[in-house]
Amino acid sequence: MTLRGRTLVASGFHAPERGGVEEFRDAVIEIGADGTIAAVRHPGSDGYSVSNDALHLPEGQILLPGFVDLHVHAPQYPQLGSALDVPLEDWLHRHTFPLEARYADLGFAERVYRLLVADLLACGTTTALYFATVHVEATKLLADLCLKAGQRALIGKVAMDHPETCPDYYRDGSAAEAVAGTRAVIDHIRGLPGNDGLVQPVVTPRFIPACSDAALRGLGALAQETGCRVQSHVSESDWEHSHVQARHGCSDAQSLHHFGLMTPGSVFAHGNFLSPPDMELLRSNRSGVAHCPLSNAYFAGAAFPLRAALDRGLRVGLGSDISGGPAGTIWETARMAVAAARMLESGVDPDLPPAQRSAHPGARIDMATAFHLATAGGAAALELPVGSFRPGLQFDAMLIDPTAPQGTLRLWPGQSGALLLERILYGTSRANIARVWVSGRQVA
Amino acid sequence: MTLRGRTLVASGFHAPERGGVEEFRDAVIEIGADGTIAAVRHPGSDGYSVSNDALHLPEGQILLPGFVDLHVHAPQYPQLGSALDVPLEDWLHRHTFPLEARYADLGFAERVYRLLVADLLACGTTTALYFATVHVEATKLLADLCLKAGQRALIGKVAMDHPETCPDYYRDGSAAEAVAGTRAVIDHIRGLPGNDGLVQPVVTPRFIPACSDAALRGLGALAQETGCRVQSHVSESDWEHSHVQARHGCSDAQSLHHFGLMTPGSVFAHGNFLSPPDMELLRSNRSGVAHCPLSNAYFAGAAFPLRAALDRGLRVGLGSDISGGPAGTIWETARMAVAAARMLESGVDPDLPPAQRSAHPGARIDMATAFHLATAGGAAALELPVGSFRPGLQFDAMLIDPTAPQGTLRLWPGQSGALLLERILYGTSRANIARVWVSGRQVA
Repeated sequence: MTLRGRTLVASGFHAPERGGVEEFRDAVIEIGADGTIAAVRHPGSDGYSVSNDALHLPEGQILLPGFVDLHVHAPQYPQLGSALDVPLEDWLHRHTFPLEARYADLGFAERVYRLLVADLLACGTTTALYFATVHVEATKLLADLCLKAGQRALIGKVAMDHPETCPDYYRDGSAAEAVAGTRAVIDHIRGLPGNDGLVQPVVTPRFIPACSDAALRGLGALAQETGCRVQSHVSESDWEHSHVQARHGCSDAQSLHHFGLMTPGSVFAHGNFLSPPDMELLRSNRSGVAHCPLSNAYFAGAAFPLRAALDRGLRVGLGSDISGGPAGTIWETARMAVAAARMLESGVDPDLPPAQRSAHPGARIDMATAFHLATAGGAAALELPVGSFRPGLQFDAMLIDPTAPQGTLRLWPGQSGALLLERILYGTSRANIARVWVSGRQVA
Repeated sequence: MTLRGRTLVASGFHAPERGGVEEFRDAVIEIGADGTIAAVRHPGSDGYSVSNDALHLPEGQILLPGFVDLHVHAPQYPQLGSALDVPLEDWLHRHTFPLEARYADLGFAERVYRLLVADLLACGTTTALYFATVHVEATKLLADLCLKAGQRALIGKVAMDHPETCPDYYRDGSAAEAVAGTRAVIDHIRGLPGNDGLVQPVVTPRFIPACSDAALRGLGALAQETGCRVQSHVSESDWEHSHVQARHGCSDAQSLHHFGLMTPGSVFAHGNFLSPPDMELLRSNRSGVAHCPLSNAYFAGAAFPLRAALDRGLRVGLGSDISGGPAGTIWETARMAVAAARMLESGVDPDLPPAQRSAHPGARIDMATAFHLATAGGAAALELPVGSFRPGLQFDAMLIDPTAPQGTLRLWPGQSGALLLERILYGTSRANIARVWVSGRQVA
């Protein structure tokens, strides 16, 4: 059922600001005809009243903002949760590139993408930042399917033309082809009938090692010309970090900036080895980081210094990193963000005395912070008007049913506030997600 | 539907030995009237034939051994997934002990325990090793409920009498009371009508810091006298480890051994700071370790050196550690076991050069190993005849439905073998678990 033009009475949580989770009970939320939140009023505040035609969400169900997933490799969905014990080189060349190459087949692309978008929506991911493949047509198809399914999506054709790092069977034929293909996808998405900005194109150099300098230069110019956001990877692993140092004589972040790729609302995945000056460069350019703690455990070789990044004012949201991370949703990502921060804080080596085990005291984050990153934090990184229930934002939301028969959430009388939210975030699985809306339209 | 006395045709996986996952297709499994697997025959092998009255499990559904959870604090279920960001001291004294004290109320105990046992069974945990509380009556009740629900359960009244570490409102009144209460629970469980060994009592000193020497001595003698297994914690944290060193002048493991508590089939939780001689002591005494990677991230301050322990021949299984770990099942535990081993291998500190980041090369395990630990490994630690589909073992199993509408598993044509098993282990959630059996009886 659409909520556009309706008034809602709902209880739940949101976290518009870091460190500021707000619980609301029986809030009256007015949603405009275009899906924008027109007003939010709380019991006891001025003008609070519940009209006769207000829609009361079922008692005991909990409204949360939809999740923003800042890093999804859409074509990798069929290998989600597999081949995680092989080295990165094998993972790319024996599993990932051969799989991505299959998206030349539009029938295969349609089967996978349709299921992926439906699954993400059903799990509460209302906004996704997608890497597609090198294929122009399959990338257009992903955009078409997102628009049809009603998911807020930012989508890029992957640009990768470097003959030394990309396989012959799966790369752009040239730098010019990488840029032209990206432009074709931008034009397609912007011209989609009925697309009022729900689906947006993103300039997507896979990562610096996969792109020639000419491609990076051309893509940077294209981003500047079109005003599109950019997505890529940054300083994910020691190897990537060192590759860019050796090739360009500077850090990964500096190189992205040099090529004009660090633009407002752009998002770079991982960032585990970002230096403080790199973080400042991102911050001052209004670019953000997709923190991907699940895949970091497998492929990064280190934990992202999340707390330090937040304290430096870096924009950070969460990324599932399908399929470098084995779980497809932000639920598991948020949980691992908390656990990984704890492991960075304590260190992991039991053979060392505690004082020598870690140089990151205070690195922990709590689940409330992870919730903020999963919602408003990700939205801020993308500069999108979503992520909380503030007036002027789009109504992107999910409704949690703690009593769903096949669900995994068990709430007990008397639990409320931060502890309740924490339980919801640790305990929810797909079966507990009763309804999902994007821009006021029900999408699951 | 009971499978006792039936012949089954099934496809699936098991891992009787570490490093040896076996996939089977259309295996014929004969189950005796007492729930024991009488024979297993594979297509092409001698004597393979499918009788007319054989029960064919639904095509496409996957049979796995039930999971063995080696560490569950049953009374902590109501706080699962909360208060994970507070220091251990706060966690125990502000949250955990006050909650456990409530089990003096049998009505509360019944509500929680009934739901916990049902939830664990529904998620495929066919065997659980439970810490209850100090309360004799509530512990008996947990045993009654497990027997009624048909869960294979090993249950201990928690013994904790030390006035300096346990709160006045929640401890055994004396060492004698701790021992007498433990004996009362042993007698109750062994005398339960209809209990053919499905539910067994366990001597359960909470951990050495919580027990007086008199209690430890008495419990050790009781374990020897009754032949009961023992469970406790061992070398979980720096604090616990140091406490025992200071108090007894030896390691935690040595102290448990000294008091007669390290007996065959006994299981000790965590073990993060076990030395090689400690591991050898456990191994030679046929005791095992419950590896709890989820709670280790929050409360241990280090990762368990799992691979090293396995290579030393230590018996290891997995423990959810409800509620020190925020997830209630072995599914999430197995996933974190793989991730934590990777983080121990690589180290976590991005500020260190790779060569200095970790002293644990080769610490990784693959998901097949985690699957073995979750099933046959846990069974071996407990010396229970379950954990795989070998003749002579009890038929404890679960059936995975990859197509369940609210499920989270997506399989694709052509996937099989180790990669398929890995996908199942990463992707399954409760909704995908179609049926569960313990000793041939359907329990979920």
